[in-house]
Amino acid sequence: METSEAYPMNGGDGLHGYAKNSTLQGRIIDVCKAVAKEAIVEKLDMGVLDSSETFIIADLGCSVGPNTFTAVENIIEAVKSKYQSKGLNSKIPEFQVFFNDHVSNDFNLLFSSLPQDQRYYAAGSPGSFHGRVFPKASLHIVHSSYALQWLSELPKEIVNKNCPAWNKGKVHYGNSGDQVIQAYKAQYETDMNKFLQARAQEVVCGGLMLLIFPFIPNGIHPSQSASHLSMDLVGYSLLDLAEKGIVSEEKVDSFNLPLYATTPQEFEAVVERNGGFSIERMEILPRSEFVNGNCPNGHQIATHMRAGFEGMIKRHFGEDIIDELFDLYAKKADEILIPAMVKSAEQGVNLFVVLKRKA
Amino acid sequence: METSEAYPMNGGDGLHGYAKNSTLQGRIIDVCKAVAKEAIVEKLDMGVLDSSETFIIADLGCSVGPNTFTAVENIIEAVKSKYQSKGLNSKIPEFQVFFNDHVSNDFNLLFSSLPQDQRYYAAGSPGSFHGRVFPKASLHIVHSSYALQWLSELPKEIVNKNCPAWNKGKVHYGNSGDQVIQAYKAQYETDMNKFLQARAQEVVCGGLMLLIFPFIPNGIHPSQSASHLSMDLVGYSLLDLAEKGIVSEEKVDSFNLPLYATTPQEFEAVVERNGGFSIERMEILPRSEFVNGNCPNGHQIATHMRAGFEGMIKRHFGEDIIDELFDLYAKKADEILIPAMVKSAEQGVNLFVVLKRKA
Repeated sequence: METSEAYPMNGGDGLHGYAKNSTLQGRIIDVCKAVAKEAIVEKLDMGVLDSSETFIIADLGCSVGPNTFTAVENIIEAVKSKYQSKGLNSKIPEFQVFFNDHVSNDFNLLFSSLPQDQRYYAAGSPGSFHGRVFPKASLHIVHSSYALQWLSELPKEIVNKNCPAWNKGKVHYGNSGDQVIQAYKAQYETDMNKFLQARAQEVVCGGLMLLIFPFIPNGIHPSQSASHLSMDLVGYSLLDLAEKGIVSEEKVDSFNLPLYATTPQEFEAVVERNGGFSIERMEILPRSEFVNGNCPNGHQIATHMRAGFEGMIKRHFGEDIIDELFDLYAKKADEILIPAMVKSAEQGVNLFVVLKRKA
Repeated sequence: METSEAYPMNGGDGLHGYAKNSTLQGRIIDVCKAVAKEAIVEKLDMGVLDSSETFIIADLGCSVGPNTFTAVENIIEAVKSKYQSKGLNSKIPEFQVFFNDHVSNDFNLLFSSLPQDQRYYAAGSPGSFHGRVFPKASLHIVHSSYALQWLSELPKEIVNKNCPAWNKGKVHYGNSGDQVIQAYKAQYETDMNKFLQARAQEVVCGGLMLLIFPFIPNGIHPSQSASHLSMDLVGYSLLDLAEKGIVSEEKVDSFNLPLYATTPQEFEAVVERNGGFSIERMEILPRSEFVNGNCPNGHQIATHMRAGFEGMIKRHFGEDIIDELFDLYAKKADEILIPAMVKSAEQGVNLFVVLKRKA
């Protein structure tokens, strides 16, 4: 079985847990609902069901809900309405849903928060989606939201002092040299290749993958992207703590965020190289922070980042710095990030891609 | 979805956790290995696989391991050797295993202790097996060990002062009047009927159920059974605490253990009434405590009982009485239970049943 580093979202249902701090990701799923439905109605082959008569959906990198439940419900609704629109009401299959994430994900919380009125048979599938998680040709629709940007591991060069790709004083690649950017990109391509190889085995011919992930537009340099700035601010805040003597500079040098935002062009290339899937649709989604005219403040963004990164930062720097770090982050977000986000509000940051398993 | 009371085994991997206190159940699985293999080789139809080419196994009431992993490995080994014996090496399917237990089961521990070299795709399926947990015709072999004796709820009459079945001063039916025994039996039949109805939908035609559960021989009264005595001792120990004023008598009156040991005759009747399965085999297993000439002491039996019942007792009586209760239990076990067990050592206490889904 493939292993890869797990960077679980904060578990539990407490103040800083992912369950209570994933509304931004949730808004994206709402935005996607119509697009996902359209994709299923237009692109899903009615012949994908084998004799087992169960329609099987997997959500990869599901974390702990509630977004995963909403996403799955939307898919089921769309599949049902496809049957209904063809006058095949009596043929509507039973649904089985696999919730996948790393072994260290809080599956206990996930299971205990399953909707009461769920209209599917739920199962949890622990394991890295960079390797096989499911039997051959066993999935009809794969969904994955805000998970593919996580690298399976950090490129080794970026923490090696003797490498030109050493990422000194930074925790991400937005403001780094080309060697660092290339190292991140190479790791992303390796990971996506493993992901697609595994899924090509698991998804039935004619089956779909609905993938949502952050991206940056073709031709835009990472240093010009507000999303990358939101990562860089973690580094700037850590450097402030280093200046105060609270953490060492070496500790900051050896810490990096294992995330990569691909471009549509890069993504297309990796899918074509794999060869198992056709790209049926590629849609740029509006910035979720500004849906319905909202504009978040620095504190809200800091809380959101904390739910995602707290575990990783604790492991590297210890628990004591967390509150101060995210206070610093919130201030910097108000000063630098929000203006940058507002300025680039029209620029999409999330991509919705529909892939179909070739026959 | 069917709901039923959950009485989870102690979670975690601590001193009193089920994971570290289920060796008796584990021994039974070892004893069953040969019988299970024989049953699979002789009774499993080679035609059960549909076009999906995945062989699907479910362990119902799996708790937290390691027994569930051993049981599943044994089944996979047997299925593989069946293919090999027919010269069908190249046709050996992929295996998918569903680990089922109540939502409150410690699935996080289960997943993190999955064997490293597992040769199957693992998934956890939360929910009561007294209702549907899986899609139609989706399982090839169902396994359940030491789970079917748990009732979905206590019969209401036994805690009703105004009923002739009121079980005053006792926590089980071994030493109770006929009305109490009948109330327990009726609940068991209701539960088993629901269990079989659900499985009849989920197991493919020709698929097998391998069920292991405690029983008492036809014609033996519960009061004559050492297994029932092991439950009664919980009641006697609680009454000692009541005498000392540590718990109230009313609290003891309203506490009962939701377990029933059926007879082979009763079990046959409930399977026949359901009609979906044929009984292919029914085998009495030796008392696991005495396997390899071992004889446990009172403390060991108390620890074993504690892993199973601690949660339930805590909920009813609070945490403070637990240590003293099981100390009392250990003494009584040395004095009364071990001699009774030795005396009836030749009498089987566990039944291994193979059911086959009718075509």
